[in-house]
Amino acid sequence: MEKPLTFREIRYKEKRRKILEHAARIFAKKGYEKASLEEIAARLKLSKASLYHYIKSKDEVLYLIQMEALEEILAAFEKDLKPSDKPAVKLEKLVTAYINTITQKHIIGALRQQELILPKKWRTKIICLRDKLDSKIQTIIQEGLESGQFRALDWKMSYMAAIGALNGVLRWYSPQGRLSAKEISRSMADFILHGFGVDQDE
Amino acid sequence: MEKPLTFREIRYKEKRRKILEHAARIFAKKGYEKASLEEIAARLKLSKASLYHYIKSKDEVLYLIQMEALEEILAAFEKDLKPSDKPAVKLEKLVTAYINTITQKHIIGALRQQELILPKKWRTKIICLRDKLDSKIQTIIQEGLESGQFRALDWKMSYMAAIGALNGVLRWYSPQGRLSAKEISRSMADFILHGFGVDQDE
Repeated sequence: MEKPLTFREIRYKEKRRKILEHAARIFAKKGYEKASLEEIAARLKLSKASLYHYIKSKDEVLYLIQMEALEEILAAFEKDLKPSDKPAVKLEKLVTAYINTITQKHIIGALRQQELILPKKWRTKIICLRDKLDSKIQTIIQEGLESGQFRALDWKMSYMAAIGALNGVLRWYSPQGRLSAKEISRSMADFILHGFGVDQDE
Repeated sequence: MEKPLTFREIRYKEKRRKILEHAARIFAKKGYEKASLEEIAARLKLSKASLYHYIKSKDEVLYLIQMEALEEILAAFEKDLKPSDKPAVKLEKLVTAYINTITQKHIIGALRQQELILPKKWRTKIICLRDKLDSKIQTIIQEGLESGQFRALDWKMSYMAAIGALNGVLRWYSPQGRLSAKEISRSMADFILHGFGVDQDE
């Protein structure tokens, strides 16, 4: 079991979280490449030295935001899950956890940036967490196919198509768009589930 | 009507096409950023001056390959189309034209590179041609919905999901992969059509 955090540690984490959220907004607005630590510090009315106490580089910000986003998707999914959920409901909950996280947290700018630019130690951790998410999706699909609720011509291809549809959201999502995150989740889950031959209205 | 090409022009076009194909292979292998005109010339056993007769810059190569790919997708689709085709068949033919083009022509390396880095005059032409392709897909979807063959919770979202699935192929396709372009086309079309509620086996 992990040791409980001290008050100082909690305060440190909260502050860092706030920094990440502001940084994420700047990434979303100007793109990762053009953003700078100076600008992040200025936005938070911090000196560069104070910021440095929490964050050592732009790469680290990107890494922490991506990690947090992936952890949040997984946590939101687990929290929402019930033991009795059928594969279709599980997949819908996963799509919802994914879209809620990437759209509501202003972290989309950080997720648009490929993790490839990160140093290897961080890249590996992100890939590892993403693999965990991918494997959750694959498990749900396998369960769906085994139970006969899902169908696929080639399950791996259907999986890749579903992932492509979800990754696409990162590219086209805008907070000013016509639909809410909830509506996007419903429509995406609807399309993907139909892709697997599931019609929930039936 | 366009003037017929002279023999000299045809030869020029053929040579340039060959250069583009080799350049596309180099882009696919090392990525656009790391490739150089020198390397393209060396691969074709051309001097840089001879290459320059056909191609003025790396950007131009990227532009020409992307234009050619888009034109080829549209041409392959039109060629395959029959007046009696129902929307589901049309959509399957479009998916096939798209996947055949991006996978068989070794142009995937050029398509992975965003057109955003290109000068405006070229970028505009590419965006214009891509809009033409997008509008073909949207028209098919509208026809499908109007005829009752397709269903969607929100047609624009289903369209974005389909586009995301297809764009995904650019990221994960490898010529060494398990499936042929034909099998990928069938599986992708199958998933997307089911996404729109179409079961062709029915």
